[in-house]
Amino acid sequence: MSSRAIKVAVVGGTGYTGVECLRLLVNHPDVEIVSVTSRSEAGQAVVDMYPNLRGYLDLAFSEPEMATLSAADVVFFATPNGTAMQMVPGLLAAGVRVIDLAADFRIKDVALWQQWYSMEHACPELLEEAVYGLPEINREAIRTARLVANPGCYPTAVQLGFLPLVESGLAATESLIADVKSGVSGAGRQANVGTLLCEATESMRAYAVAGHRHLPEVQQGLARAANGDVGLTFVPHLTPMIRGIHATLYAKVSDHEVDLQGLYEQRYQDEPFVDLLPAGALPETRSVKGSNMCRIAVVRPQNEDVVVVLSVIDNLVKGAAGQAVHNMNIMFGLDERAGLNSVALMP
Amino acid sequence: MSSRAIKVAVVGGTGYTGVECLRLLVNHPDVEIVSVTSRSEAGQAVVDMYPNLRGYLDLAFSEPEMATLSAADVVFFATPNGTAMQMVPGLLAAGVRVIDLAADFRIKDVALWQQWYSMEHACPELLEEAVYGLPEINREAIRTARLVANPGCYPTAVQLGFLPLVESGLAATESLIADVKSGVSGAGRQANVGTLLCEATESMRAYAVAGHRHLPEVQQGLARAANGDVGLTFVPHLTPMIRGIHATLYAKVSDHEVDLQGLYEQRYQDEPFVDLLPAGALPETRSVKGSNMCRIAVVRPQNEDVVVVLSVIDNLVKGAAGQAVHNMNIMFGLDERAGLNSVALMP
Amino acid sequence: MSSRAIKVAVVGGTGYTGVECLRLLVNHPDVEIVSVTSRSEAGQAVVDMYPNLRGYLDLAFSEPEMATLSAADVVFFATPNGTAMQMVPGLLAAGVRVIDLAADFRIKDVALWQQWYSMEHACPELLEEAVYGLPEINREAIRTARLVANPGCYPTAVQLGFLPLVESGLAATESLIADVKSGVSGAGRQANVGTLLCEATESMRAYAVAGHRHLPEVQQGLARAANGDVGLTFVPHLTPMIRGIHATLYAKVSDHEVDLQGLYEQRYQDEPFVDLLPAGALPETRSVKGSNMCRIAVVRPQNEDVVVVLSVIDNLVKGAAGQAVHNMNIMFGLDERAGLNSVALMP
Amino acid sequence: MSSRAIKVAVVGGTGYTGVECLRLLVNHPDVEIVSVTSRSEAGQAVVDMYPNLRGYLDLAFSEPEMATLSAADVVFFATPNGTAMQMVPGLLAAGVRVIDLAADFRIKDVALWQQWYSMEHACPELLEEAVYGLPEINREAIRTARLVANPGCYPTAVQLGFLPLVESGLAATESLIADVKSGVSGAGRQANVGTLLCEATESMRAYAVAGHRHLPEVQQGLARAANGDVGLTFVPHLTPMIRGIHATLYAKVSDHEVDLQGLYEQRYQDEPFVDLLPAGALPETRSVKGSNMCRIAVVRPQNEDVVVVLSVIDNLVKGAAGQAVHNMNIMFGLDERAGLNSVALMP
Repeated sequence: MSSRAIKVAVVGGTGYTGVECLRLLVNHPDVEIVSVTSRSEAGQAVVDMYPNLRGYLDLAFSEPEMATLSAADVVFFATPNGTAMQMVPGLLAAGVRVIDLAADFRIKDVALWQQWYSMEHACPELLEEAVYGLPEINREAIRTARLVANPGCYPTAVQLGFLPLVESGLAATESLIADVKSGVSGAGRQANVGTLLCEATESMRAYAVAGHRHLPEVQQGLARAANGDVGLTFVPHLTPMIRGIHATLYAKVSDHEVDLQGLYEQRYQDEPFVDLLPAGALPETRSVKGSNMCRIAVVRPQNEDVVVVLSVIDNLVKGAAGQAVHNMNIMFGLDERAGLNSVALMP
Repeated sequence: MSSRAIKVAVVGGTGYTGVECLRLLVNHPDVEIVSVTSRSEAGQAVVDMYPNLRGYLDLAFSEPEMATLSAADVVFFATPNGTAMQMVPGLLAAGVRVIDLAADFRIKDVALWQQWYSMEHACPELLEEAVYGLPEINREAIRTARLVANPGCYPTAVQLGFLPLVESGLAATESLIADVKSGVSGAGRQANVGTLLCEATESMRAYAVAGHRHLPEVQQGLARAANGDVGLTFVPHLTPMIRGIHATLYAKVSDHEVDLQGLYEQRYQDEPFVDLLPAGALPETRSVKGSNMCRIAVVRPQNEDVVVVLSVIDNLVKGAAGQAVHNMNIMFGLDERAGLNSVALMP
Repeated sequence: MSSRAIKVAVVGGTGYTGVECLRLLVNHPDVEIVSVTSRSEAGQAVVDMYPNLRGYLDLAFSEPEMATLSAADVVFFATPNGTAMQMVPGLLAAGVRVIDLAADFRIKDVALWQQWYSMEHACPELLEEAVYGLPEINREAIRTARLVANPGCYPTAVQLGFLPLVESGLAATESLIADVKSGVSGAGRQANVGTLLCEATESMRAYAVAGHRHLPEVQQGLARAANGDVGLTFVPHLTPMIRGIHATLYAKVSDHEVDLQGLYEQRYQDEPFVDLLPAGALPETRSVKGSNMCRIAVVRPQNEDVVVVLSVIDNLVKGAAGQAVHNMNIMFGLDERAGLNSVALMP
Repeated sequence: MSSRAIKVAVVGGTGYTGVECLRLLVNHPDVEIVSVTSRSEAGQAVVDMYPNLRGYLDLAFSEPEMATLSAADVVFFATPNGTAMQMVPGLLAAGVRVIDLAADFRIKDVALWQQWYSMEHACPELLEEAVYGLPEINREAIRTARLVANPGCYPTAVQLGFLPLVESGLAATESLIADVKSGVSGAGRQANVGTLLCEATESMRAYAVAGHRHLPEVQQGLARAANGDVGLTFVPHLTPMIRGIHATLYAKVSDHEVDLQGLYEQRYQDEPFVDLLPAGALPETRSVKGSNMCRIAVVRPQNEDVVVVLSVIDNLVKGAAGQAVHNMNIMFGLDERAGLNSVALMP
């Protein structure tokens, strides 16, 4: 590691997105991890909780104090919703850049945010400045951002799948459908009955069908891409596996002449972390397990009006920690792939 | 078992639907299993392949010969597509009734069948007579049927979910969407790389997006219910679990005044194997694991036009062997629940 | 159900052993479930928590009150350790028989019990009377027992595997080894991080190697069979599956002339729930999933002194609820197989 | 990659050990992959079979021809047993070094090898020269080896667990016991019924109890360490997970004064890929998933004579491809950790 390594602090290092940030950052060539915080585990060695990091990280969890965090160049918040917003104004004032992996800065409309997240926003004045950290649409703004709102896992998979159809005006945007299947790690490391192995394995179920917090986030992103309102039905499903999101997207595309494969290839040809599969191939989530890649296929079954897009990511990487590292790389002028070159584990 | 027990033969007893027939039939109070056939395993004790049946069944696999099968009152075909149609004419002529768990008699239009199944039909003259064995729509015809075409697993879950909306004329039937997730046992017990544990666990993928054989079967059923053509996009997914189908169904229902919960409750109130969940509850596939129940919920998210129906079954029971036993019960005037009273295994 | 049905109450019906009792009891031909208690869920319909029971059980959880429980013929305690002993004296005084699925009455030596369970015993005077409910060794005593201590899951699998070798005096009992693998349901339905799907699937680990509470229970049972002290190394492992225990047992047997297969066959020939596999066959836990069977194989590898016994059960059935029903059947003079005839779910 | 990159060919690139070699080698800083062979898939792009490698490897499978392979500096054989021995003499003659991941050169005694592998050895004259590639015992010999026999997965976990006890003479070596649990990937990518998801998930079973091919390999290694004969009972188990081996080892150690923790720490203190856990901690296989680490704990339960050692590896990495890369690093004078620094995926 060079003496000019970027100093990174991770706030909330005990959850799955936190440890995934650590997994990626300990092997990042340009990063020095300066602190990992956890109120509940302060004093415990990080490797006692996450033995996979033994030999890679010699830190104990510390209290999340401004003095310590201010010494970092960038702070990753891998905390529950509502935590980052308490500390971000102080950090920005201290000249520290912030990547929030939670939802505090994802929604521009503060009223909408407060409705879906059932709390008052602590610093609504920063919502305008915060940059939504989906590099495939906001790369330039991310470069100079002080505050990046890292996208949710579902919104990443769904937006990347729909973007070419929506930006091009081909899709009928009043009735998009996103049927999305997520591995259980998306629910985090909290001790809940519903995510016990005995409750969640060997079963499939939809949840939050009446309304999920990621719905307004996706709608906001697609509306910007569409330059207009978007009607979206979004149904998330809990899938019996640890990692992975498989978004199956349905859109009405009346134009049967358009070359959908070409449209998608062109849209993503320069993106390091979006891989359009060859025509005829379909993605599987295990092909991105542990990697920052999003793989996409687009199909028009039976030559009907409804186009089906399949988009897979690892929810903890491209849907969280990997995208955060990608954003950091952009913010600090590094190679976008730095620290993100590991191959998906298959099998 | 009474001396008036129904004599049942199972052809193709080595596959998953075959053994599931046996699991249900050995405890059926009115049934005597007289033969279980398998060309490849003839002579081997059934329990050597399926030790769960030790103590319940004292038969060896036998060759599927007409002489033996003709001694049965009813023959279950749990064979690959294209096998039953070779033997059914002879069996019917011998006065034996038949329940085919494969696809040979499910499609009325022989040209359509031949297109999707890539073979010539051996007895197209029987397609008209064959009764599609979905008791919830065909109970009366099943009672007197000589030949029952047991529905496919996907078609069972999808049709039961859509029926009330389609029969009532509420759904816009030109663009129905069925996003369906199936456990791996739906692929059978053949030694294929794609269904190895190391290929199929911890992953999610769609398959046959361009067109799956169950599509025309579902369309035929829904068209009859709608009394008109139906446009359906059907996307099956391989889900990392053994048993279970979760169908997530999307339909445009412009009428916002209709009481959807009441509509579904009324449609299925007398059905022993369809369970409409209370409003607000969502089904999970494990709640039907090993049982013949189909559980359904209907939701209108965000009060929009798109209605979401969730329908879960055990693909090997309500989607295959259990439905076959149900059909047999109806055909022979038994209690419809006979042999089908076991509670789902949970956890 | 006849008017002479046995009235059963289940205390602690929310855990996995509790619901498994209910799954078996609702289909038991001689049983009427009169109450299901849970302090935390009192008032809630049982089927709201366990939808697999919809249509089978029309009770709400109630408070565990003596008045109610005294109306039962037998009370099943599916409670945490230390609960049953608070209520058992009163129930016995009221003429109610008790089957405790927890550990309160399994160990005869109260000091030993208090050491391993870290609490004071509330009614040590009942330990002598309590009958250890392993039918394969205690059938006669169970018939007339007022209080049955249902064995633990590990002790059931380990004792049934070792018994013939120990009772016959063939095994060197000073250094028995039991390497045992359990599905995660053995840990119960409590919300613990360690049994989350994301922590427990796709991984294998030993736990409590330094000492597990089931060790003294097994030692007590084997010592009685051996008529002397027994040295046992017992290592439990958390296995990434819901149900099943696989005990791999090692014993030194210097006598190479003995017919081990015959010894085991003879020992268990009249037992309805122990199945000795044919020589050469090895058991798998899925062959008993959902059933009350214990399947056993005995092997002498390489003709060496060390004999290997493999013993598999479903921890929730033969290791808990099924064995409790079996005990009830014996206590009330019923067919031992009543309510326990379901075939293991395979696949 | 420097112009002095080591040219590597992988023979048999379609199996799980083959693709795991590729996963590690594509990111190895000192390696150029020059060919990946497969008779059955020749001509197909590697990434069509393994999409996780898309963007990392731009080769098609080729026929395994001497002309091509001779251009490599080192050839990895990830082939079925009996394949490498056909080509190795020619390759060595051409000055190419070889790492065989199969069993052809692991056993020094050709008669013993032929007995267990049921074929005639094609080049027994090379068995003497072949170096058994367990770096923890053979590092110096590996440096200059022309031919390395990469250890089996079970033997790696078992030997590393037993070595300190056996080398020190503390263990009673006449009756060692190894109860070993393996993920299903150890069985390879062949289409077999027994490793289908529906057969292998949610179940646990022992196999090859009467005798497994890895037994003589482990015995040979331990005998060398013990400088004398070793009696070993070795029972492998198929565990419902993709990756991971958990070896639970039992040895009689009469000396109660010895500091076992210290013994193990000292033995492995300089080993980059053996991690002795702190006293009291127990390993889990997921802590090494995707990494080349072996984690070990040593426990003496109840202060009895029997010592328990727990040893976990990823069977495809430290048990196969990772160890092969480690061997290559040693053979070519590279940093031993090169290409092997990825952190285990957890969760």
